[in-house]
Formats: sequence, structure tokens, C-alpha cells
Amino acid sequence: MKQVERIGISLEENLLSSFDKLIVKQGYQSRSEAIRDLIRRELSREHLSNPKAEAVATVSLVYDHHSTNLMERLTGLQHSHLLKTISSVHVHLGKHNCLEVIVLRGRVGQIKKVAENMVSLKGVKLGRINLIATEGEELFKK
Amino acid sequence: MKQVERIGISLEENLLSSFDKLIVKQGYQSRSEAIRDLIRRELSREHLSNPKAEAVATVSLVYDHHSTNLMERLTGLQHSHLLKTISSVHVHLGKHNCLEVIVLRGRVGQIKKVAENMVSLKGVKLGRINLIATEGEELFKK
Amino acid sequence: MKQVERIGISLEENLLSSFDKLIVKQGYQSRSEAIRDLIRRELSREHLSNPKAEAVATVSLVYDHHSTNLMERLTGLQHSHLLKTISSVHVHLGKHNCLEVIVLRGRVGQIKKVAENMVSLKGVKLGRINLIATEGEELFKK
Amino acid sequence: MKQVERIGISLEENLLSSFDKLIVKQGYQSRSEAIRDLIRRELSREHLSNPKAEAVATVSLVYDHHSTNLMERLTGLQHSHLLKTISSVHVHLGKHNCLEVIVLRGRVGQIKKVAENMVSLKGVKLGRINLIATEGEELFKK
Repeated sequence: MKQVERIGISLEENLLSSFDKLIVKQGYQSRSEAIRDLIRRELSREHLSNPKAEAVATVSLVYDHHSTNLMERLTGLQHSHLLKTISSVHVHLGKHNCLEVIVLRGRVGQIKKVAENMVSLKGVKLGRINLIATEGEELFKK
Repeated sequence: MKQVERIGISLEENLLSSFDKLIVKQGYQSRSEAIRDLIRRELSREHLSNPKAEAVATVSLVYDHHSTNLMERLTGLQHSHLLKTISSVHVHLGKHNCLEVIVLRGRVGQIKKVAENMVSLKGVKLGRINLIATEGEELFKK
Repeated sequence: MKQVERIGISLEENLLSSFDKLIVKQGYQSRSEAIRDLIRRELSREHLSNPKAEAVATVSLVYDHHSTNLMERLTGLQHSHLLKTISSVHVHLGKHNCLEVIVLRGRVGQIKKVAENMVSLKGVKLGRINLIATEGEELFKK
Repeated sequence: MKQVERIGISLEENLLSSFDKLIVKQGYQSRSEAIRDLIRRELSREHLSNPKAEAVATVSLVYDHHSTNLMERLTGLQHSHLLKTISSVHVHLGKHNCLEVIVLRGRVGQIKKVAENMVSLKGVKLGRINLIATEGEELFKK
């Protein structure tokens, strides 16, 4: 059972009205929701600066599926570490190219290293790594 | 059939030796591969600054799957736009929380907007948006 | 005379206590101050996505002051555009290297272009560009 | 006396021609110069992930110069740490607002902390922190 608190915030009238306009545009339904998101993002950023914090990484890779052995090496990397690879999704972008999105779970330092190794594989043309903190029950528990 | 060119680059000896050490650590097998990746990343960054460029977005969302109607609203968003949602993967993070990774395809301006709308949905606790340029045959064609 | 409003925000108890810990660590003296900063940063980010918005850029350049004509070319760039270069500061980093921090004022699109031109000058070894929105009276007016 | 080496890089023809177009637009005069910059930026990014590496921080702060004691507290912060504040520049943005750019020198971990403390001072409306690695002679020595 989650415990909800209510706090008061004071801010300049025109700062508030600009914020209200922005969050409507972004699709928020309440100020509380929008401010909670800003707070969670700031806490997540803080957690991720700790190499030992628990996190998930979403690794997005574009590669040519004709690249010799790339898929084997990718799979190898996922198994050679003590990380949990939770899941992956494979998308065809065109005749030659695929997007593979791989979700890794582990400590920030480790999953960053594995993700960098994936991006550097021969045949991978573009790679992006996205980290999300999963530590900190305040971020995730209700 | 791809056309490969060979160019010469001059750089200071100690800059080169530091770079060589870094790319070994990152897992690269050749300097050419590492430099091609730096170039592709720079071109991708440039493409993404154009709201009309074609791209894919990987949207990573953490949410409580008990949130009323969240999944319906997420699915609704994916259908209400002229974007192609290529794929999505759903991962259980714990008793309450899920990670959903949604791959969207379309123009930078559009997919950013849809992705922001997803992040702002009530019930979504953390969201990250990753864009990858797919335009520019130099990035993806061989 | 500024107009201050007071709003109520509801959030989970443990989210609040984590946020309280973080802002103490960051040096904030009140929650209102910390949340106002999160809001201003979000609004600034939004403004900066508009190439026509007014902004200042802080351009930090590391270069060898023996580089032929670099300083002339830097000064030339500052004069050849309709931008206001407000100020610059020059710092000696060692026997050969200087850090020059140049503050430019103008529209986002323009100052980005001039800043990129500065970073690309022969002799500049490292460059960083920082943009701060100055438009939006909500950000700056009291 | 610097030692220059020449290396050969192979890359796809259309990747090369897109890169050539981009660097002309950015103002580069040669491919070598542009690629050296990409390499230095990557090395700098790597250095900055080490909290003990030497660096400079450019801290850009927007504040109302009527804020009580802000300038004293800012100066206090610069003196209360073992950091070298190399320099600072003060710019008037309007009737109320100033931009102050402060250059700090020290280890990544320390200067980040001081910079965050500056950004969190009451009266500071917006702050941006820019780090540049100064360690690694390959980055700076000729």
C-alpha cells in the first residue's frame, strides 16, 4: 500500500504558466504527474552515476544481417558475461539492414562495458545505449 | 556491390597511441572500423537535427502494469498516429513493474512527439527516448 | 514586482524522501528552489529546440596559442556574423595550451553555426558548446 | 617537436562523400583535422568518466544580481575548496539578469561537486556545467 504525501511549492506566476503550457503540449494530465517525472528522472540520473547501481540497458544496434558471424558473436557476448539478457527484438529495416534492440540487466559498470562491446562489433553500423536505473525503490515501488 | 576507398590521415604519434589503446578496450578489431563508427555517429547526429529526416526511435518505458488503462492508452497512441510501430518487447522487472521497449519508425519530428506522449502517460514512471537516423544511404547501405 | 503562486503536489512518500536526500547533497536549501530549477531546465531545453529562440552560447576552446593565425581567425569569426560576442576569457593551461571561453548571443540556429565553425578551426584541439535559453521571460524575469 | 604519423583508413565511398560534405559545412579544411577532432572528443569523453582525471569545468550561471548575498556565496564556494578557480567573466543580460561564466580546474569528481553546488545556490536561475579533460598529453601536447 503506497503512502502519498502532499507538499506545497511556491513559484513565480509566469514560470508556472509556462510550465503549464509545456506539460499540456507533452500530454500530461496533472502538474503532480509532470513534477514527479522530473524528480524521478533526476534521481535516475544520480543512480546511474554509480557504477555499482542496478540498471537495465536498452542497446539499439543497426547492422547488416549478412555480416559474417555477427549474430553468433552478439549472442556470444550476451552469454559470456554474468549479465542477464532479458530480451531482444529484431526488426527489418530494409533489404540489408536490421535493428536489434537488446535489453540487458545488471550493474551500471558491467552492462555499459558489454553494451560498448556490442556497439564495437564488426558489422554493427550504428549503436545507441540507453540506461535506466532500476535501483531505488522510490523509483519503482508504489 | 559496395565501393571501398582508402584515404590517408595524419595525426600526432601520442594521439594515435592513446586512440589505439581506447579502441582495444572498446573491443574494436581495426582502426578503420573504429573511425568509421565515429564518422557514422557524427553523420547520424547531423541527420537527427532535421525534424523531417527518417529515423527509428527506441522508447523505453518503466511502468506499473496495474495502472488503470495504461496499456490500452499506450496501444491507442501507437495507432492514433501515422507512424509505423514496428515492434515492442515487454519485460517483467519485478512484482509490479514492467519495462516496455517500443520501436517507432517515422520522421524525427513526429516520432519525438509520439514518444514524449508515451513518456507523459499517467502510470509511466520513467521513460527514455533514443533516436537513430535511418536516412542517408551512406549510413546503412553497403 | 514578481507574483508568487503556491501550488500543491502529491507524491509517494519514498520518492519524496529520496528527493529530499538528493537535494541536500546538491546543496539546495528548499524543495521549492530545487523543483523550480527542474522546471526552468525543462523549459530551457524546450526553448533551445527552436532554432529561432534567443540564447547565449558559452563556447569553450582548447588550443595551442602558437597555431598560426588562430587568434586572428577566431576574432574574424566573431566579427563576420551579426552575432553579438559579449565577452571572452582567456586562460593559460600550460606551456602551449590555452582555454578560451567565448560568450555569444543570438538566435539558437546562428550561434550554433558560429560555435561549430570555431570548434572546427585548425589548431583548436577540443571544443565544447553550451547553450542557455534567454528567451521566455518566465525563465529570467522576476 | 611533435611526431606525426600517417595511417590509412578504408571506408565506403558514399560514407566518405557524406562525411566530406558535412565537414565542409562545419568549416573544416581537411579530413585529417576533422577525424583528429572526432578522436580527441572520444578520448576526452573517456577521460571524463574517471572521477580522478584532471579537467576544467566551465560553469555558466544565470542569476539575478539583486539576489541577496549570491555573489558572496559564489565567491565563498570558489574559495572553500581546494580547487583552482582560474577565471570568471560576468555579462549583463538585461536589467536584472547576469550570466557568470566560471572556469574551475581540478579533478573531475571535485569540480563536478563544486559546480553542482553553484547551480543549486538560491538565486541562480539556470546553470550549465561543461567539462573538458586536460589530462592525457595526447589531447593537448604537440
